[in-house]
Amino acid sequence: PESETSRPNKVQELYVYEINERDRGSPAFLRLSQKPVNSLGDLVPFSNKLYTGDLKKRLGITAGLCVLIQHVPENNGDRYEAIYSFYFGDYGHVSVQGPYLTYQETRLAVTGGSGIFEGVYGEVKLQQIVFPFKLFYTFYLKGIKDLPAELTGEPVAPSPSIEPSPAAKATEPNATIKNFTN
Amino acid sequence: PESETSRPNKVQELYVYEINERDRGSPAFLRLSQKPVNSLGDLVPFSNKLYTGDLKKRLGITAGLCVLIQHVPENNGDRYEAIYSFYFGDYGHVSVQGPYLTYQETRLAVTGGSGIFEGVYGEVKLQQIVFPFKLFYTFYLKGIKDLPAELTGEPVAPSPSIEPSPAAKATEPNATIKNFTN
Amino acid sequence: PESETSRPNKVQELYVYEINERDRGSPAFLRLSQKPVNSLGDLVPFSNKLYTGDLKKRLGITAGLCVLIQHVPENNGDRYEAIYSFYFGDYGHVSVQGPYLTYQETRLAVTGGSGIFEGVYGEVKLQQIVFPFKLFYTFYLKGIKDLPAELTGEPVAPSPSIEPSPAAKATEPNATIKNFTN
Repeated sequence: PESETSRPNKVQELYVYEINERDRGSPAFLRLSQKPVNSLGDLVPFSNKLYTGDLKKRLGITAGLCVLIQHVPENNGDRYEAIYSFYFGDYGHVSVQGPYLTYQETRLAVTGGSGIFEGVYGEVKLQQIVFPFKLFYTFYLKGIKDLPAELTGEPVAPSPSIEPSPAAKATEPNATIKNFTN
Repeated sequence: PESETSRPNKVQELYVYEINERDRGSPAFLRLSQKPVNSLGDLVPFSNKLYTGDLKKRLGITAGLCVLIQHVPENNGDRYEAIYSFYFGDYGHVSVQGPYLTYQETRLAVTGGSGIFEGVYGEVKLQQIVFPFKLFYTFYLKGIKDLPAELTGEPVAPSPSIEPSPAAKATEPNATIKNFTN
Repeated sequence: PESETSRPNKVQELYVYEINERDRGSPAFLRLSQKPVNSLGDLVPFSNKLYTGDLKKRLGITAGLCVLIQHVPENNGDRYEAIYSFYFGDYGHVSVQGPYLTYQETRLAVTGGSGIFEGVYGEVKLQQIVFPFKLFYTFYLKGIKDLPAELTGEPVAPSPSIEPSPAAKATEPNATIKNFTN
């Protein structure tokens, strides 16, 4: 009677772009290590803008914390432990945790969500397009009902030149989801 | 043989009050942004006391971190990303992550738990009663067995005047759960 | 058709040792409370090395953040809220959250994972062997397929004298997992 049969375990892919438009005071790089090179001890709270994979709609924001774990000189970059959420207006949010390497694609864990994402699990692939301003994510989501059509448009292939549509960037009413997070 | 049928997916509601009695040095507002107004870069570790929804028993504490994401002048408040746990003495704990807005009800993700909360998922509604001293939570929990009766008493309706029973506040033996977290 | 029957819910135990070999600049104790004794407000980013329970292979690292919640004078120690991940090279990672007490065994929630740990849930027992240099973990994992044999060797019983095999410590090719995290 209480079987899990109502919790879908098929995989749904969800594509989103995270873009730093340099108007949110983000990231806040806290050089608490007090060392000249990025080091364990540095903390980086951040919040960027989120758009649909087809770049036609503003979704909301990301919000969270990157913990600098180590500088990796051979890759001219850094390893972070990232703990943050993706906000999708009235649809709710998705929380994630895992590795963020400034020089390489990674996979993070989806740890939970709210709204239409209540009960979600799975993982997300993070691809850096233009460090640190444009990132592309492919979520592999389980445990939730079918995603709404406006979230599942055909994604624009990641490239350095991608930009949200002017209407989405201007958050025009037909180019945002309902009560998009800002 | 390994079906998920033993993982219950019915929703169980759990009500708790979080109260800051100003005796734990909490919150520790770290103004690391070094800006005069609350800003991205500020971090707020915190730990408050937890009582049952009927206010008759002391449960334990909350413990975690709020990451200030943005000041929201039009609401005279702030958006935080909140990452914390609820401790229930010998019963174990529940971890959550999501939005904390000082001016509005929100929903956070339940990301996991221990003890009787091992394998838990779902979400939790956060309602602010008296900022920042009294909060009321309604958990919508799945994946766990029936909660014990002492956690599921009829909740007192949230209002600014609510107070834990004097016995619970004084952590008298009959007014705490077993080995309540302190 | 979308039943959960393919998500295994049997418990798999996984044993790992976390060792601070004092070569990673960890922990970074950030005394942001500005108080003479450990207090709420202090933050401790950390990253240590991970070995298999049989101490024969280097797995990777831990990475994350401990939030100091309170000093506990009667136990001559501290309570932390711990938010971190365990990295297992090409196998992926496991994220956890919960209590870390410097003076007592605890249980944390497993909140998610990637790679072979995609969809994982459950809990993990943390045992301190030599504070703060040697810890032993017993994971109780659900939601994933059978773990590979090289992760499930018979664990060495925890004791202060345990050491990884010299080959594992030297990360010799036959004494690491594939692309071990470093």
